[in-house]
Amino acid sequence: MLQLSEIYNASRVLKGVARHTSLIEAPKINPECTVFLKPENLQLTGSFKLRGAYYKISQLTEDEKARGVIACSAGNHAQGVALGATANGIKSIICLPAGAPISKVEATKGYGAEVCMVPGVYDDAYEKALQLQAEHGYTLVHPFDDPKVIAGQGTIGLEILEDMPDIDAVVVPIGGGGLIAGVAFAIKSLRPDVKVYGVQSAGAPSMVASLQERKIQHLAEVSTIADGIAVKEPGVNTFDICNTYVDEVVTVTDDEIAAAILALLEQQKMVAEGAGAVSVAAVMFNRLPVAGKRVVCLVSGGNIDVSTLNRVIVRGLVKSGRNCTLTLDLFDKPGQLSGVCAVIARLGGNVISVSHERNNDSTEINGCVLRVEMETRNTQHIAEIREGLASAGYHVIR
Amino acid sequence: MLQLSEIYNASRVLKGVARHTSLIEAPKINPECTVFLKPENLQLTGSFKLRGAYYKISQLTEDEKARGVIACSAGNHAQGVALGATANGIKSIICLPAGAPISKVEATKGYGAEVCMVPGVYDDAYEKALQLQAEHGYTLVHPFDDPKVIAGQGTIGLEILEDMPDIDAVVVPIGGGGLIAGVAFAIKSLRPDVKVYGVQSAGAPSMVASLQERKIQHLAEVSTIADGIAVKEPGVNTFDICNTYVDEVVTVTDDEIAAAILALLEQQKMVAEGAGAVSVAAVMFNRLPVAGKRVVCLVSGGNIDVSTLNRVIVRGLVKSGRNCTLTLDLFDKPGQLSGVCAVIARLGGNVISVSHERNNDSTEINGCVLRVEMETRNTQHIAEIREGLASAGYHVIR
Repeated sequence: MLQLSEIYNASRVLKGVARHTSLIEAPKINPECTVFLKPENLQLTGSFKLRGAYYKISQLTEDEKARGVIACSAGNHAQGVALGATANGIKSIICLPAGAPISKVEATKGYGAEVCMVPGVYDDAYEKALQLQAEHGYTLVHPFDDPKVIAGQGTIGLEILEDMPDIDAVVVPIGGGGLIAGVAFAIKSLRPDVKVYGVQSAGAPSMVASLQERKIQHLAEVSTIADGIAVKEPGVNTFDICNTYVDEVVTVTDDEIAAAILALLEQQKMVAEGAGAVSVAAVMFNRLPVAGKRVVCLVSGGNIDVSTLNRVIVRGLVKSGRNCTLTLDLFDKPGQLSGVCAVIARLGGNVISVSHERNNDSTEINGCVLRVEMETRNTQHIAEIREGLASAGYHVIR
Repeated sequence: MLQLSEIYNASRVLKGVARHTSLIEAPKINPECTVFLKPENLQLTGSFKLRGAYYKISQLTEDEKARGVIACSAGNHAQGVALGATANGIKSIICLPAGAPISKVEATKGYGAEVCMVPGVYDDAYEKALQLQAEHGYTLVHPFDDPKVIAGQGTIGLEILEDMPDIDAVVVPIGGGGLIAGVAFAIKSLRPDVKVYGVQSAGAPSMVASLQERKIQHLAEVSTIADGIAVKEPGVNTFDICNTYVDEVVTVTDDEIAAAILALLEQQKMVAEGAGAVSVAAVMFNRLPVAGKRVVCLVSGGNIDVSTLNRVIVRGLVKSGRNCTLTLDLFDKPGQLSGVCAVIARLGGNVISVSHERNNDSTEINGCVLRVEMETRNTQHIAEIREGLASAGYHVIR
């Protein structure tokens, strides 16, 4: 059973290990409320996971420490356990599914873990971890459903109240529920008037479903760009704590998450991973009753693969009308390309790439397809360019 | 003449306006020293420029305030002046060259400035600003060579000493020199034992050249991805202060700057613009005598265009051997593509894109060119894949 005193103890143990991340105002996220970010993406290892993992490991018996710890993860938990174990001077084995991004594998090794690559997916890696645990007597560090891990994450709640006593609400991402369980327990124990909201991805709403049914639900499948919270089933402890202390849990879509990642990147100069950005997405897209309030959005992590980040950027620019690709059906005769470019230039579009293709299945024998990608101001600007092209006699297919 | 008391006054005036950004440890930048970042990319407006601009504007006479201010900039200074003026309740006009990125134009408008788009380049916009100033009596806010502006930037030096009294060295980007002039003056006045180093882009080394010749040099051309410090000539005041107080100024290349941007993105979850990352690049690539020292790298700003950021990411991945494109010369017969893919898969390369082209000028009539882009671990991994393909009988052109 979780006690507030345990969270205070975790706070003491984590001093000098985990960073006390400073709240940062985010004035443009939602003009109707005052938004602050708790940037756990700026935490060591790039996510809050270090807190729970380090605290759990620090509380093992000498005998358990001597035998070492094992964990299974494709991401943040791996790095948290690796650094937590190394900093406590003990051995760690991390089972990773073979498809894990190279950058995360290297980071986990870099924090001093022995990495065991397991063919297959996460579930296979988890089986392997259990098998190694049984063979060698390692202690398994669960990613969320462990009271010590929850207590470690709860230190974030203490820091928020310390730094901003006049807060009205805290918005927290939910995967397995370890983070929100700790934060909600800490905050509601001290300040029951502060609202604690949870956010899940619409593609992995296991806690939402469980709270609705008032018992733990198992999702057959999860699919979301927020891989850090793509969890099929909440924990027993985390479900109980959420059921008691959390005011409301909502979901956001992948497109909303991508828009939040882009907003954090451009407005706040911060890299958030999908899981880390769901709290911001919920406030950006008005999913929560926080108008006029002072709100802290917990940005839980920043470990996003840079190629994924690239795709999110491009998609976000397209969604907000700042990047647009038009496809035109042209007659293959001189001057057509030049004419189209002149219209776009006159209307202020900034051409990025052009592909001009003959002999396409979709065209007339003497036709060709022109694809123009350009930088634009907004969706209205795109509409202007489309109209400009149409009234100059060009046929925009899409 | 700059006085320490003026920097303290700026610090007082800026309280509640500019953020006191918290130092963040960056353990992986260079294992030979202890690196902290002063993240002015997390400052309001995305750069330190707000400090100097706001302080300058706050110190205008009532008459000058009533007439409004004017500035010319393609980037950070524009946003700093716009917010500084709006926060002081006065009018601002910002002249921008017509080619300025749409995102920066919109941001400047968003901070309340009247934007004047000037056909041509920066110099044309500057001429226009002088002309408008003469016509309307606006006060010109210089981007760097003004004692009040320098005093505002100097508040960063006070914050660094306050937050980390046991610091050995501070590393500061240099464009026109306003930032380093303020920081060096503040730090050397209080703690002459702390080293202050400056960094310029190798493509715009105006301060380096001026210090060498012991008088101001004008560069005919500048070219760098660090557009925020692409300045042809230092200021009169900033040159004098640098000449007196700065210990050493070094340069870094565009590729080193791109690597530093990528390191900040991946390791620190932070977006830095080129100008902001030169300090980190200098320490990463051992340009400065800081082994064994406690060093603060000033990350001056984060206003990088997201499409530029994309290009930097890709280039950085290529440079570090984590993205690789191989071009092969194949016979155009069934099974070739499949064979190549099998070799790459066996050796652990992760294929991202493939283009397979016949009828290319560079091939035999019955040949074709295959271009494979893949995710790789490092340069050694790429060498393994090249060898694997060669020994399976495929011809890698490049």
